[in-house]
Amino acid sequence: MPTHPILIAGEWRAAKASGTFQAENPTTGEKLPGEFPVSTWADCDEALAAAEAATILRATPPEQIAKFLTRFAERIETRKSELVKIAHAETGLPKAPRLADVELPRTTGQLRQAAAAVLEGSWALPTIDTKLNIRSTLAPIGPVWVFGPNNFPFAFNSVAGGDFAAAIAAGNPVIAKANTSHPGTSRLLAEEAFAAVAETGLPPATVQLIYRTSHEDGARLVADPRTGAIAYTGSRAAGLKLKSAADATGKPIYLELSSVNPVVVLPGALTERGAKLADEFAGSCLMGTGQFCTNPSFVVLLAGELSEQFIAAVKTKFEGAPTTPLLSSAVARALAASVKTLQEAGAQLVTGGKIISAPGYRFANTLLRVSGEKFLAEPEKLQTEAFGNASLFVIARDAAEVEKILAHLEGNLTGAFYSDTGGGDDALYEKFAPLLRLRVGRLLNDKMPTGVAVSSAMNHGGPYPSTGHPGFTAVGIPASLRRFAALHCYDNVRAARLPAALQNKNPNGKMWRLVDSQWSQADIAE
Amino acid sequence: MPTHPILIAGEWRAAKASGTFQAENPTTGEKLPGEFPVSTWADCDEALAAAEAATILRATPPEQIAKFLTRFAERIETRKSELVKIAHAETGLPKAPRLADVELPRTTGQLRQAAAAVLEGSWALPTIDTKLNIRSTLAPIGPVWVFGPNNFPFAFNSVAGGDFAAAIAAGNPVIAKANTSHPGTSRLLAEEAFAAVAETGLPPATVQLIYRTSHEDGARLVADPRTGAIAYTGSRAAGLKLKSAADATGKPIYLELSSVNPVVVLPGALTERGAKLADEFAGSCLMGTGQFCTNPSFVVLLAGELSEQFIAAVKTKFEGAPTTPLLSSAVARALAASVKTLQEAGAQLVTGGKIISAPGYRFANTLLRVSGEKFLAEPEKLQTEAFGNASLFVIARDAAEVEKILAHLEGNLTGAFYSDTGGGDDALYEKFAPLLRLRVGRLLNDKMPTGVAVSSAMNHGGPYPSTGHPGFTAVGIPASLRRFAALHCYDNVRAARLPAALQNKNPNGKMWRLVDSQWSQADIAE
Repeated sequence: MPTHPILIAGEWRAAKASGTFQAENPTTGEKLPGEFPVSTWADCDEALAAAEAATILRATPPEQIAKFLTRFAERIETRKSELVKIAHAETGLPKAPRLADVELPRTTGQLRQAAAAVLEGSWALPTIDTKLNIRSTLAPIGPVWVFGPNNFPFAFNSVAGGDFAAAIAAGNPVIAKANTSHPGTSRLLAEEAFAAVAETGLPPATVQLIYRTSHEDGARLVADPRTGAIAYTGSRAAGLKLKSAADATGKPIYLELSSVNPVVVLPGALTERGAKLADEFAGSCLMGTGQFCTNPSFVVLLAGELSEQFIAAVKTKFEGAPTTPLLSSAVARALAASVKTLQEAGAQLVTGGKIISAPGYRFANTLLRVSGEKFLAEPEKLQTEAFGNASLFVIARDAAEVEKILAHLEGNLTGAFYSDTGGGDDALYEKFAPLLRLRVGRLLNDKMPTGVAVSSAMNHGGPYPSTGHPGFTAVGIPASLRRFAALHCYDNVRAARLPAALQNKNPNGKMWRLVDSQWSQADIAE
Repeated sequence: MPTHPILIAGEWRAAKASGTFQAENPTTGEKLPGEFPVSTWADCDEALAAAEAATILRATPPEQIAKFLTRFAERIETRKSELVKIAHAETGLPKAPRLADVELPRTTGQLRQAAAAVLEGSWALPTIDTKLNIRSTLAPIGPVWVFGPNNFPFAFNSVAGGDFAAAIAAGNPVIAKANTSHPGTSRLLAEEAFAAVAETGLPPATVQLIYRTSHEDGARLVADPRTGAIAYTGSRAAGLKLKSAADATGKPIYLELSSVNPVVVLPGALTERGAKLADEFAGSCLMGTGQFCTNPSFVVLLAGELSEQFIAAVKTKFEGAPTTPLLSSAVARALAASVKTLQEAGAQLVTGGKIISAPGYRFANTLLRVSGEKFLAEPEKLQTEAFGNASLFVIARDAAEVEKILAHLEGNLTGAFYSDTGGGDDALYEKFAPLLRLRVGRLLNDKMPTGVAVSSAMNHGGPYPSTGHPGFTAVGIPASLRRFAALHCYDNVRAARLPAALQNKNPNGKMWRLVDSQWSQADIAE
């Protein structure tokens, strides 16, 4: 069985490998055909050298970069059935609706939104002080390493997903480090990306792909002088190791790490629509076997009969729902370990709590519960992320205890409140919301956090340790592009030497520029 | 002699000190009256606890914060003569024009610009997706530690300067760590800041001041869970130690570190106006005894007679200029050490190179030179920052060698080109400028970098290691405020629960908001 090549410097070529690995079908536990290489430093070094040369991308007209993003989206659509088939085999995620009807269209939609942002140009916040003739704009930061997660084989794929689209749209070459649980999906996507690169005449190393490195080389490549920035989505432990290496050489690293996504269900909402909420919550929790960064796995309730009814209703849903496969054996093992940690810290099983035997990698739909008092005794352990189909109810004695619980929360991507429509919960909301607000990137009302819309106003980010910096979002254009940019100021630079975006004439008549502190699409009078 | 109190939690009270220190008059070398405390962790801890409580500032109306900033500016002006007197005594910087006519008005101007930015509100990039009802805005990040530098006792003072103004304007309490070379100036400024806090009814711990801590406590306080962010301007070594501590707990730290600020003088410019440029360069270099972050201390020239004439002319200027005092004995020692490092790495003295004996702390106006070839053999050492009145000429054999030199530059705050007005230098500019562009935050034409205008388009920032992140600026409103903010998204949040900036009605009719991807000052139709 030949080993798949890697994509370096515009060529699919054999890796300088230290070993190989195979993907697995998590639905069956069987190895999938095809060997993928574990690259040595030689591959990383060549990719970095090629990417550095490909930073001439910064001088490429926006139309050409937009064309690439659009053609890539079209090529993905052309190869859709093959992509869905392999992604399903590698992740166990349902072909439809999830992969074919939701995630793939989302992915091509992101690429097209990124193309539109490149054409329009406002994302870079071009700023002009006409009086002093000082002008500035965000500009490409340099080669971006993208480490994609296991749970979105398309939409967060390192060679096609949101970080990829944002980094390219900001004018940077991307070196993709495939997630090792779906290397075959990444390979097909990289084939289409590279074909689109060739078709649209971008520098050949605009898109490169390697599959796996040693941890040591991973730390080395993020810290390399040729690296511009890094985007990482995945486990906290691995992410923080990369952060430490990148920080040491001043490389911006954007992380999307763990999050338990607290949901506070206020009593009026339970009275008003408890059964409906149990449905909604169970659906959100079990979707994709709970393998979302924004999975609501930490629910705060006030002690009482209505909360007990809610828990019982969710329990019934969890027990009645099928046990769908997890993404890999590693995910199943980690989930079991997390549930064990929660139990050891004082949480009690409501249902589930064990690995389901073959076929594939499955864990029983799991609910746990703990009192507010016990939570406050072990707040760190009881915020252990149980990535997958498990959720913890934290039952507070009273409102004061809810406040204490919220004040002990780590940084999270999201936090949600459910309250009644009549205003009966408003006093509690006003008490609790400011506490949760400071600890999450996105605050929701009456809505589960699992839908992360690709919206200009989205924040898929949050306070540490849910990410590495609370000011940036991984989803949402234009803001996600700004992660991969450096601020370039031009002071008294002669007119003809300015980038097009900063010249007096608005380059496309549509670009928003902050001219003398007012946003404007107009040309500047000579 | 009683020890000066510190300002903690709304009270001037005795420090829990491990020792004391005195300021010195660098013009005479004599100690100035007044003992200042070295705080122990107990002081830091109390300041953090008080600052955390003062984050209720986030709910304070913008008008009130703006009023504070304006009143503070007015109070500084009222106390101007006393402030100028003590700042002169502590720094040796000239009373006029520098302190009284340039730096103090700049400081109050920054405070007033920050007040205007708070009132207007557009700095926070409020973004609204009306279709999905997702809304986001930058919001206060939490208590900000400001470590001010030695070289701007007013404009970058930790309790009155640009970082202070930006952090407060973004809605955060500030804990100022005074620069230990001008504690008395910081004390007076803090008195006025606190009086303005009291007068405008802000939380008492909105502004706090300590003077000095141990290095260990410095590392501990930046990493503390209650810290929101840190702004540091100063030496690279101390800054990187704080960065390492802050990074370890995910605290955003904005650094402004060393920079040699390369200036490339092209041959046509020398032919056209060599004598004028020598004047301009010498003036920029020696202003404030060269103690600017943006001091042009690295000049690239092409070998030839014109360059020799330029060097000779600058030498004459340097030798004819008075030797003005440095900020402290530490600055004089560091400058001597840096010049020694440059010499050991192959640079030759053109003039100066030694400490001038009493009175005070002075170093002879110093020029060094080195060939491009030698530079390329020791590029790191030959980029040692010589903070003060010293500059290095790097003389390249030819254009290709200039390209190599530029490619070896570290990240800098600024880089400048001088070229002729007739277009004779254009070919060289086109070759060189892209290389320098990537290595600096602000690129200048025909202008020395020492003037850092407080402009909306300014970038006082740059690639690592001139700062810690190339996307942020320490000077320039509105961008400098965005360093001290977290992105807060509201997803389906009920209208009445949204912050004013995100409600349908534009809160002041002037705030620019990105509504459905178009900047607008209008209300949103219901």
